Amino acid sequence: MSANLYLVGFSGTGKSTVGRMVARSLNWEFIDTDDEIVRSAGAGIDAIFAGRGEAGFRDLEHSALAGAADGGRRVVSTGGGIVTQERNLRLMRETGLVVCLEARVETIRERIEADSEGAVRPMIDPGHLGQAPPSLKAERQPLYAMADWTVHTDRLSPEQAAAEVLRALEQLGGRAAGPDSEEDLAAVVRTSAGSYPVWVGWDRIGSVGEIAARVVGPDTAYVIADEGSARHARRAQASLERAGIAAHMLTFPMGEAHKTLRTVELIYRWLATRRAERGHLVCSVGGGVVGDLAGYVAATYLRGMPFAQVPTTLLSMVDASVGGKTGVDLPQGKNLVGAFHQPRFVLSDVATLRTLPERIRTEGWAEVIKHALAFDEELLCDMEEGAAALRALERGPSTDVIRRSVAIKAEVVSRDEGETLGARILLNYGHTLGHALESLTGYGRFLHGEAVSVGMMAAGRMATGPGMLGESGLERQRRALESFGLPTAAPGADPAALRARTLSDKKVRGGRVRWVLLEDIGRAVVRTDVPDPVVEAAIASVVSP
Amino acid sequence: MSANLYLVGFSGTGKSTVGRMVARSLNWEFIDTDDEIVRSAGAGIDAIFAGRGEAGFRDLEHSALAGAADGGRRVVSTGGGIVTQERNLRLMRETGLVVCLEARVETIRERIEADSEGAVRPMIDPGHLGQAPPSLKAERQPLYAMADWTVHTDRLSPEQAAAEVLRALEQLGGRAAGPDSEEDLAAVVRTSAGSYPVWVGWDRIGSVGEIAARVVGPDTAYVIADEGSARHARRAQASLERAGIAAHMLTFPMGEAHKTLRTVELIYRWLATRRAERGHLVCSVGGGVVGDLAGYVAATYLRGMPFAQVPTTLLSMVDASVGGKTGVDLPQGKNLVGAFHQPRFVLSDVATLRTLPERIRTEGWAEVIKHALAFDEELLCDMEEGAAALRALERGPSTDVIRRSVAIKAEVVSRDEGETLGARILLNYGHTLGHALESLTGYGRFLHGEAVSVGMMAAGRMATGPGMLGESGLERQRRALESFGLPTAAPGADPAALRARTLSDKKVRGGRVRWVLLEDIGRAVVRTDVPDPVVEAAIASVVSP
Repeated sequence: MSANLYLVGFSGTGKSTVGRMVARSLNWEFIDTDDEIVRSAGAGIDAIFAGRGEAGFRDLEHSALAGAADGGRRVVSTGGGIVTQERNLRLMRETGLVVCLEARVETIRERIEADSEGAVRPMIDPGHLGQAPPSLKAERQPLYAMADWTVHTDRLSPEQAAAEVLRALEQLGGRAAGPDSEEDLAAVVRTSAGSYPVWVGWDRIGSVGEIAARVVGPDTAYVIADEGSARHARRAQASLERAGIAAHMLTFPMGEAHKTLRTVELIYRWLATRRAERGHLVCSVGGGVVGDLAGYVAATYLRGMPFAQVPTTLLSMVDASVGGKTGVDLPQGKNLVGAFHQPRFVLSDVATLRTLPERIRTEGWAEVIKHALAFDEELLCDMEEGAAALRALERGPSTDVIRRSVAIKAEVVSRDEGETLGARILLNYGHTLGHALESLTGYGRFLHGEAVSVGMMAAGRMATGPGMLGESGLERQRRALESFGLPTAAPGADPAALRARTLSDKKVRGGRVRWVLLEDIGRAVVRTDVPDPVVEAAIASVVSP
Repeated sequence: MSANLYLVGFSGTGKSTVGRMVARSLNWEFIDTDDEIVRSAGAGIDAIFAGRGEAGFRDLEHSALAGAADGGRRVVSTGGGIVTQERNLRLMRETGLVVCLEARVETIRERIEADSEGAVRPMIDPGHLGQAPPSLKAERQPLYAMADWTVHTDRLSPEQAAAEVLRALEQLGGRAAGPDSEEDLAAVVRTSAGSYPVWVGWDRIGSVGEIAARVVGPDTAYVIADEGSARHARRAQASLERAGIAAHMLTFPMGEAHKTLRTVELIYRWLATRRAERGHLVCSVGGGVVGDLAGYVAATYLRGMPFAQVPTTLLSMVDASVGGKTGVDLPQGKNLVGAFHQPRFVLSDVATLRTLPERIRTEGWAEVIKHALAFDEELLCDMEEGAAALRALERGPSTDVIRRSVAIKAEVVSRDEGETLGARILLNYGHTLGHALESLTGYGRFLHGEAVSVGMMAAGRMATGPGMLGESGLERQRRALESFGLPTAAPGADPAALRARTLSDKKVRGGRVRWVLLEDIGRAVVRTDVPDPVVEAAIASVVSP
């Protein structure tokens, strides 16, 4: 995590102009090292060069930089020659992110000419006075290349360049939370809209207020929960209030049946009545239904409000709370309406799982096993060995396994935020048939994790051909699921109806189902070429086991 | 608009790996110049260097590059030394975008070591065989700096680097439409989610299918219109069908009263029934209500579908269709629910305005005048002089003025996509009181543009103090509005109620209204310090004129 942002680059690349804009937008302090030098020396830069030589100037410059580096939340615009000193480069890299503003020589010449026609010209870097820019710029180019990020400003307005710098800061984690809670940090998820931290700890819900104040800093929060998570939500609310954040709370009835546009509308009206503003925080406390629904409200009310997730079910900790998917169901299908809206942070308190009904906790292990089956054989081994301790929710093993499972999910969604690169779809192992089964049985007979467990068995059956998981892998999967008390079949479900439902899956492209299958334990792939008889046989194997 | 994408950079920066991913994602052809050289010479690169010397190799390399450049939609990964030849740099810049992959020497060393432990090592660039990388890299750095964009890969996975390259292409317009319709191009809007073109032409609606096929390429489209725009929508539908896109159409009743969650839900169900997929296109044909609502559906159905706007009212052409704001009203306020969702293109056919009722056309001029008042005095002069021709919708002047007005809107939203930098709020000149007036009068007495016209008069009255617009500027504004037949007062409206409604504006921060005022014609600013009596007097001046 970085304390400061340093802008380096040749003269005329816009460091001061862009730096000021960035500082304003972040509400950070802006420092221009050349201004600091002039102020401390009580003389202009030309005069300093004339009196003390370049070495004298560079010493003053290093002092100015050291002064700027001795603090945080600062945007520091530097002189074009600052990178020529190794000590400066080292200091900047140790105390923050270094972003280089780049421009072609032609662009720089144009800007200098435009400036000389009347606009205010920022101080010309003394290092190149009397020298033709191209050669000096060429000489420094290897040093500018040491930056963490480069923005080419030739075709950008200052505002666009500032936006690119802000994005660099977000991409590289400069705005995520500080290091003091890093012991519980499971992952930092990177998205195009910024990075966000995910914590998995034990008995941590009481720190949500302190985290919200630090990471988001709202003056008001809206805690949304369902009746099952109300007691946790009250603790979160109290924690927010202790941190000086006015916290309102709303609960709605439990269950997928309430994950509807009706409930969303109810919450919209509640927010409107309380005059919610764009800078206020929406904080969900509960399971996947609460998180998906509150996240969707946060995504769409006032075209987007900051959002935090405090998942209190195993399923939502390891799956729904990470990745920015929000949404509600329609009568025609689950999650047909939704938006991508990344939380500003996720805080999972494993201790809250102690109060979950046995069956709800059990279904969560299906997603943990899914992560292991699809991505991480070592995690599967540890789960096979530690099944009893995990099911008993022993503090050490359960926090460890849940944190690793969350890290897998975070890594996949960081790589493929918008589901365009084919990585994220692998998280849907077991879900195509799982969703169909839930939908067919009216979201009543099977919990989500249970349906996914059955779905994984059907997908496993499709993968018994050559070069795929095989019978022994399938048996290992079955034993793992059973050792966590998960169902591996759905006796009596209508196979033809199940088949038909798979065709309304969101992953369908051009009418073809994209099945996620295992090549091996820990290695999931997408296959669009599964023959109809193989699909039918796999479905038959779980409905008539 | 660029035909190809060239990846340059030192060996070990990931050009081939990333290039392949980018090509796959774009569905473009991938070419590796080193592979081409080996194929055409029938010899390995070491052998070519040994036999023909570096000069011989560079000639083969240039031929390979020229072959790659002779075509479009190609991702071309190049050898690390390709930039050393001026002819290569020139060719790449003339035929596409040049993106440099950067990595620190330490990173490159680590990657080479990791590779030598067994993974497949892409061909080592022959230019540095036998030489220590740092010095050669330093030497080439000025040449890499000539790229259009740089991605530092040190802290990115290949997938993340590929995503950054795709973003560069989108930011710099490489994926926007081709040049053949550029005569009518008003602007290319740049957003974090990519660039999109906005065309303003005369009698152009019949080309929507050809444009959709080229820019989006869906196999199915859903045309959404209201009863007032149904005739235009049928032309759009026919055009889509001619372009080989299956086009379904839905219309809903006219008016702001239908911009509700109810209508949204109706459309969701229609899409669900038709099994809409994520790659299908939602195309709105109509005014602001249709665009906002269809855009919101596109933003939220399946967590986002491609969207195109074909505005057929003046108001929506110059305002709502550009900028990605979508949304619906709640009983508590206009647009309280919504999302940012950028269209893939906007096509405005000025000829469609001929069929608009007089009053609807008139209200649109309020937003055109607003753009002139807030940003462009020259546009205001032209509108003052050409008022009669514009009101008569003469082809030449009206297409010109509307295109310029759209360009202003596009420029502002490109600079400040997410309303964070303070530029975009200036577009709300006249809107704070305008929205209050519409809401207070139940969206019945005043059309949006009419209310904004009155709102601008109130804001103008607030700006009669020193250093601001002044009485003469206010009079000029009044005359401009009146010459287009717009109202400048709302006699009889309840001033206290209006006042109260301004406090539920989305722009309120910490309870303070952020008023957009004019310092002068063409220069809008935000003021949060307008004293209560000044606000009250301004409201009084429009309700009791």
